[in-house]
Amino acid sequence: MSQQINGLDLAKLREIVELVSANREKAEELNVWKARVRWLGGFRGRAYIRDHSFVVDEPADLAGVDTAPNAVEYVLAALGSCLTVGFILNATKKNVKIDDLEIALEGKIDNILTFLGLSREGHPGYREIKVKLYVKTSASQEEVEEIWRETFNTSPVGNTLTRNVNIIPELSIHRP
Amino acid sequence: MSQQINGLDLAKLREIVELVSANREKAEELNVWKARVRWLGGFRGRAYIRDHSFVVDEPADLAGVDTAPNAVEYVLAALGSCLTVGFILNATKKNVKIDDLEIALEGKIDNILTFLGLSREGHPGYREIKVKLYVKTSASQEEVEEIWRETFNTSPVGNTLTRNVNIIPELSIHRP
Repeated sequence: MSQQINGLDLAKLREIVELVSANREKAEELNVWKARVRWLGGFRGRAYIRDHSFVVDEPADLAGVDTAPNAVEYVLAALGSCLTVGFILNATKKNVKIDDLEIALEGKIDNILTFLGLSREGHPGYREIKVKLYVKTSASQEEVEEIWRETFNTSPVGNTLTRNVNIIPELSIHRP
Repeated sequence: MSQQINGLDLAKLREIVELVSANREKAEELNVWKARVRWLGGFRGRAYIRDHSFVVDEPADLAGVDTAPNAVEYVLAALGSCLTVGFILNATKKNVKIDDLEIALEGKIDNILTFLGLSREGHPGYREIKVKLYVKTSASQEEVEEIWRETFNTSPVGNTLTRNVNIIPELSIHRP
């Protein structure tokens, strides 16, 4: 059986990196991601991603029925998950064993009132997100800091949030 | 019983908008959102948000076990859900009945190779996201376009993605 570290199979991980590295088409494939969201009534929706699906709702104080997190909460979870995967990837590549890891996130919206149409000041997006990594490991402080820095610089969701994404809308109206 | 439209109770929605409008503290409360992500081994993690929790994983071709969507897919779902809620909110405020609604999203990452440490060109974040709204309604083309435009301009996740978010990292190392 091949070597495992941090729950990852090292031989398999190396194989994947080599495949993507050698195969331009495979790399291009991994650049494209898709999702669909179907409205369920009120503020509820179901997201469909490949073979997976999950609900998105709003809490009661935003007129939802609170059966699931809302969209801005999923953004925080996506950032935390992305940094988790990145940290484990970068630690594993350096042969650093991680015993435990948790990330706590807190995001501050510039002005939620603009979403509700109650203000024209500022905007309703996140202005700032605090990310705190709790990690249990025997690695040196320097090693952990280096892995954390590398994880930040190479995070897909991190880079998405700290840069400007170009959103291209399209509209298709159907009649009842 | 009070009037319902699009699965929303109009009196309750008005009540919420008035509460947030009149109460600065409540508005500030709705500006702050939190999440935690716990590592489950390999590339799996569980996100905790208020009373909710869900899994994040990677597909097999990124060394995961594919038990759930991955972080960049959750970002697309968050954008689609945010635009769904916003469209229904803005339609309901205008008393426009929506019969059906679905949003399809496709995101293009600048260069996934940078995430795997195989390239220094570009970055691994989304460069572009296409968003297509399919909506079934009797409202006029102009009305639907106006609601769609307003939804885009006031979308929390939309504004988060099209702007630069300031991410503040913190690190807490624990010893086994």
